[in-house]
Amino acid sequence: MSSPAIYDPIAAELDLVIERLRELARVDFPWLGQMLEHVLRQRGKQIRPALCLLAARFHPCDMRQVVTMAAAAELLHTATLVHDDTVDKSALRRGDPTVHSLWGDSTAILLGDYLFANSADLCTSTGNLRCVHLFAYTVMTLCKGELNELFSAFDVKQTREHYLQRIERKTASLFAMATESGALLSNAPEAEVEALRRFGHHLGLAFQIVDDILDYMGTEEDLGKPVGNDLLQGTVTLPAILLLEREPSDTTVRRACEGPDREAAVREAVERIRSSGMIEEAYAVARGFADAALAELKHLPSSPAQASLRGLVDYVLSRSR
Amino acid sequence: MSSPAIYDPIAAELDLVIERLRELARVDFPWLGQMLEHVLRQRGKQIRPALCLLAARFHPCDMRQVVTMAAAAELLHTATLVHDDTVDKSALRRGDPTVHSLWGDSTAILLGDYLFANSADLCTSTGNLRCVHLFAYTVMTLCKGELNELFSAFDVKQTREHYLQRIERKTASLFAMATESGALLSNAPEAEVEALRRFGHHLGLAFQIVDDILDYMGTEEDLGKPVGNDLLQGTVTLPAILLLEREPSDTTVRRACEGPDREAAVREAVERIRSSGMIEEAYAVARGFADAALAELKHLPSSPAQASLRGLVDYVLSRSR
Repeated sequence: MSSPAIYDPIAAELDLVIERLRELARVDFPWLGQMLEHVLRQRGKQIRPALCLLAARFHPCDMRQVVTMAAAAELLHTATLVHDDTVDKSALRRGDPTVHSLWGDSTAILLGDYLFANSADLCTSTGNLRCVHLFAYTVMTLCKGELNELFSAFDVKQTREHYLQRIERKTASLFAMATESGALLSNAPEAEVEALRRFGHHLGLAFQIVDDILDYMGTEEDLGKPVGNDLLQGTVTLPAILLLEREPSDTTVRRACEGPDREAAVREAVERIRSSGMIEEAYAVARGFADAALAELKHLPSSPAQASLRGLVDYVLSRSR
Repeated sequence: MSSPAIYDPIAAELDLVIERLRELARVDFPWLGQMLEHVLRQRGKQIRPALCLLAARFHPCDMRQVVTMAAAAELLHTATLVHDDTVDKSALRRGDPTVHSLWGDSTAILLGDYLFANSADLCTSTGNLRCVHLFAYTVMTLCKGELNELFSAFDVKQTREHYLQRIERKTASLFAMATESGALLSNAPEAEVEALRRFGHHLGLAFQIVDDILDYMGTEEDLGKPVGNDLLQGTVTLPAILLLEREPSDTTVRRACEGPDREAAVREAVERIRSSGMIEEAYAVARGFADAALAELKHLPSSPAQASLRGLVDYVLSRSR
């Protein structure tokens, strides 16, 4: 299933999500409107709103509420990106200059807060208290994940378990919120809500592992950032952790984290990890989570939405950027 | 009424608020717990939780819910301080080193987000959808106010109206949320909810004007920061705006904003503003809002809570730090 085909059953609603987000840029201060337009123009793959919309498709429901929640999920993701780019000092995001590189850190902090607040407001306007609870819990979890990433930077002693716990928080929690909230708003029976939540959770883990793998692959040109950028930032992800596990005597990752001449050491570590078979092993871990996600779909009736969720799993595993 | 006497009718509940906030520091990561303890230890005047608790005192209600909401208001305030100190590059807050000065900007961004998320979670756990709506709307308003402050820095063309709109957003909105949410949780009739909301709003305006006046008064030793620090940061507050209004040909404020040698120009502007009578005029504006706040109390029955709210108005006008 190609990416447009995956989104076919929800194409109209996805347009409404985009419209809903565009409306946010219509504010009383022109300078704020301009910044919001910049941020909201940079549209990514829209997996989170798509997950929310698809998860709501198994029962008849008020799709306006679901569109609102899907917009909240996308906006929450956008808010975290604005702050993450500031924390990581990244110059580019989806090929465009980041907020902090255009307008400075202070603006990025406050604009990110404003986006957080707007996403909370969108979520609240669904009027569904369980969704609001879920939203607040998810934001807490995301922040814990991001803080953990910051505090475990350059730490070569972290294990696969530490890594999984971190990406569970910083990525899978938002995927799970998207699917769970869609299910809740469609008044799905509890067993389906649970299945869709777990689906989102496992898919989120697979997505982040693949994302972390892609950082080691391709060229600087493909990626729009240096190959091995995560390691350069001190973020030790699954391929490096697997190498540290398998070959404790190998010092490449350690040197990439601890220097001196970290840039050269990172290049060397990227080569070592690519040739060590750890990329393939990391893919196998991602496939394991993708399979766990697919297994959850058995709890749901066959339908175009179910086929799209299946298609999303394939897409997450096969994407090259 | 002295400050302890003001808090007498809610002393037990205020202790519970503090306990509730302390609980947040009991987290699974020791480094996060340590940072939270640092932030939550720095207790200010606790006006916002006190307002929430007092506003709920006019009708019998579940005080546990109100305590939770009061904790949410205080924590939201704390979150904004962590980000504001980072934006303003302030080294000290309530005599303690700020988060960003201790652990860096990145940690401050993410810790502030975590505090925001926790305050949203506390608010959500009241289970009152109107409070949750109010909370989300307030966070949006606060962010707009902070962004506006950043974007109007060094702008000597701003008017009293601009200033009032800004402090309405960045301060009065949170005071109003505190009183309105307390009233809502006590199931007060709509007219009382409105009166208490307006009380909080006017008190917040008076509070911020006095806060801005105090920045021009006293000595560096009293303030724990340089006299005229706001102006040094480019924040043009009421006393300076009044001088610009009254004496358009006076160039002291302009030179303090536009340089060269801004430090000396700020010292000169502080002297000029102190001797120009603008401090007294600014106090008169604050007193106007304080009177408007007091007028709202007529809609409420005489009671210890009403007396405390009245006492808070006096305190806000008379405080010297």
